[in-house]
Amino acid sequence: MQWKAEIEAAAQRIAGHAHQTPTLTTDGYGLGYPIELKLEHMQHTGSFKARGAFNTLLSCDVPPAGLVAASGGNHGAAVAFAAKALGHTAAIFVPEMAGPSKIALIQGIGADLTVVPGEYANALTLAKTYEIETGAMQIHAYDAPATVAGQGTCFAEWEAQGLQADTVLVAVGGGGLIAGALAWFQGARKVVAVEPETSCALNAALASGQPVDVNVSGVAANALGARRIGDICFELAQGMESVLVSDTAITAAQHALWQERRQLVEPAGATALAALMSGAYVPAPGERVAVLVCGGNIAPDPFAG
Amino acid sequence: MQWKAEIEAAAQRIAGHAHQTPTLTTDGYGLGYPIELKLEHMQHTGSFKARGAFNTLLSCDVPPAGLVAASGGNHGAAVAFAAKALGHTAAIFVPEMAGPSKIALIQGIGADLTVVPGEYANALTLAKTYEIETGAMQIHAYDAPATVAGQGTCFAEWEAQGLQADTVLVAVGGGGLIAGALAWFQGARKVVAVEPETSCALNAALASGQPVDVNVSGVAANALGARRIGDICFELAQGMESVLVSDTAITAAQHALWQERRQLVEPAGATALAALMSGAYVPAPGERVAVLVCGGNIAPDPFAG
Repeated sequence: MQWKAEIEAAAQRIAGHAHQTPTLTTDGYGLGYPIELKLEHMQHTGSFKARGAFNTLLSCDVPPAGLVAASGGNHGAAVAFAAKALGHTAAIFVPEMAGPSKIALIQGIGADLTVVPGEYANALTLAKTYEIETGAMQIHAYDAPATVAGQGTCFAEWEAQGLQADTVLVAVGGGGLIAGALAWFQGARKVVAVEPETSCALNAALASGQPVDVNVSGVAANALGARRIGDICFELAQGMESVLVSDTAITAAQHALWQERRQLVEPAGATALAALMSGAYVPAPGERVAVLVCGGNIAPDPFAG
Repeated sequence: MQWKAEIEAAAQRIAGHAHQTPTLTTDGYGLGYPIELKLEHMQHTGSFKARGAFNTLLSCDVPPAGLVAASGGNHGAAVAFAAKALGHTAAIFVPEMAGPSKIALIQGIGADLTVVPGEYANALTLAKTYEIETGAMQIHAYDAPATVAGQGTCFAEWEAQGLQADTVLVAVGGGGLIAGALAWFQGARKVVAVEPETSCALNAALASGQPVDVNVSGVAANALGARRIGDICFELAQGMESVLVSDTAITAAQHALWQERRQLVEPAGATALAALMSGAYVPAPGERVAVLVCGGNIAPDPFAG
C-alpha cells in the first residue's frame, strides 16, 4: 500500500463532506506540560468515523442494494450519515451494547437499523449475512483499506494545521483510526496506542505475536470493544508502544475534559488523554505530546427525552 | 478611552492566564451559508468572563480584603478562578436563579459564596454592601473599563486567528462582552446584538434613548438577565443593530450545537446562533457572518451527582 498517497487521495475525496475539526494547545489536566488536542468528536455524527465512511463511498460504485455496516454505534452513524448525504440506502446492525444514545442517533439519521443481542461480533455476523443475501456493499468498521485511508486524513489534516508533537496518543478499538495514524506518519512521529484494560485487542495481539480474540467490557466497550484487532492495523502496529488504562482513569479524563474545557465526550473520546493523566504513558523530558479526542457520543444524550 | 490600546494591553496582561479559544468555519444549522464560530465556552470556568476578571486583577493592586463580585454565575466563577490563580480571596454573591450547576461550579473553585434570593440586581446590592463594609475590591460583571477591555481581548484574538466575517453576532446581558466587541472593532466590522425577548436590557435602552430597567426571565436569564444595560455598553452601542430571539429559538440553537458539533452549551451560549437560525438576523447576499459561542455552563451539569 502506498499509504501516504492513498490518504492524500482520500483527503481530496472527502473535502467538503467531512468537517475539518479544530485543534488547540492547552495546559491543565494536572500534567504540568502543555498538550495538543484535536477535537475530532466535532466531526459529523460525533466521531472520526465519518472520514472513512465518506472515503469508502466516494471511492467505489455503490450497488443498487446500498450499504450495510456492523457497528458499536459510531461507525453505523457515520455510514448512515454518509449514505444519506450521497443518496444511498444503508442497513446498519448494532449490538445492544451500543446503548440508547447511539441507537437513537442512527435512527434519527434515518437508516434501516437492526439492534442485535450481545456484542459487536454478533452484529458483524448478521451484517455479513445481509451482505450475501442482498448484494449490499459492506463497509467494515476498521479493517478495510478505504476505511483506514479515510481515518488517516485526520492526521494529515492535523499536520496541515500545525501539529508540533513528537508523539501522538490515539485510542484503539478495532484499529482503524490508529492504523490511519501509523499509515500517515510512517514513523516520522511516534504513535502510542491506548486501550482500556478490559478491551485491549491490539495489546493482546502485540503480546501474542498475532491477532487473538479477547473479551470486551467496560465503560468504552461500545466504541473500543472489538474482539480482535484488524489485520491492517496489526501489520502497521509492529513494534509500536501500547498502553492500557482503567475505566476509572477513562472516567476521570472524561470529567476533566468537561471541567477544564466544557468538552463532553464519550469514554472512548477520553481514553487517550487518560493515558497521560493516569501515568500509563509518561513523556520523556521535552517530549511534546498530542491527544486525539475521537468521539463524543455520550450516553445518555444530554438532550434525550 | 483609547479602547484599542486598552484591549491590546489587556491581551498582554492575561496571556498565559486566559486560554486562547478555538475558532472554526462550518456549514450546517440549516442556514445554507458558512459561518465562523469561536468556542469561547472553552475558556476557563466555561465563559468569556475569565478574560475580564484576569485583566482587572492584573491591572490594579488588590486590597488585603480581597475581591467581591455579584454575578448570575459565570462572572462569579471567573472571579473566583482568577482570584485563586493569583492568590487572592474572593466573596461571590449570586442570585438563586444562578442555579445549582453554576453554584456548584463556584463552590468547587473554593470561593466564599453567598446565594441571594431573587435576581442578579439583589446580589449586586449585597455585594456593594460587602464592598463598603470590608474594603474588598468590587469587580463589576460588565460595567467597568477593565472588564470591558478584558472581554475585548476575545475579539482581538479572533482577528489574529484569521476572522473573515463582515458581521459578528454577540449575545448581550449587561453588555460587557459586546462592549468589548464594539470597542475592539471600532466600526471595522458590524456587530449585532442578540438578546432574549424576555431579557433585553440593551434593546430597551436603544429604543428609549437611555438605559432603562427591564424585567428579566427566560431560559438564558441567569447569564443574560441584567435588569439594566451597562453605561459603557450603552455609549458604545449607539446606532448598532439589535435583534431579539425567543426562548424556543435559543433552545433550538442549543440542540443544534450538540447535534451538529457535539458542543454542549448553556442557553446564553447559543443565543447569538439563534438569531441566524430563527431569521431574527438575515445576512445580506454575500455578507459573511460570525457567531461567538460565549458560555457552556449548562444546567444540570452533565457530571453532577
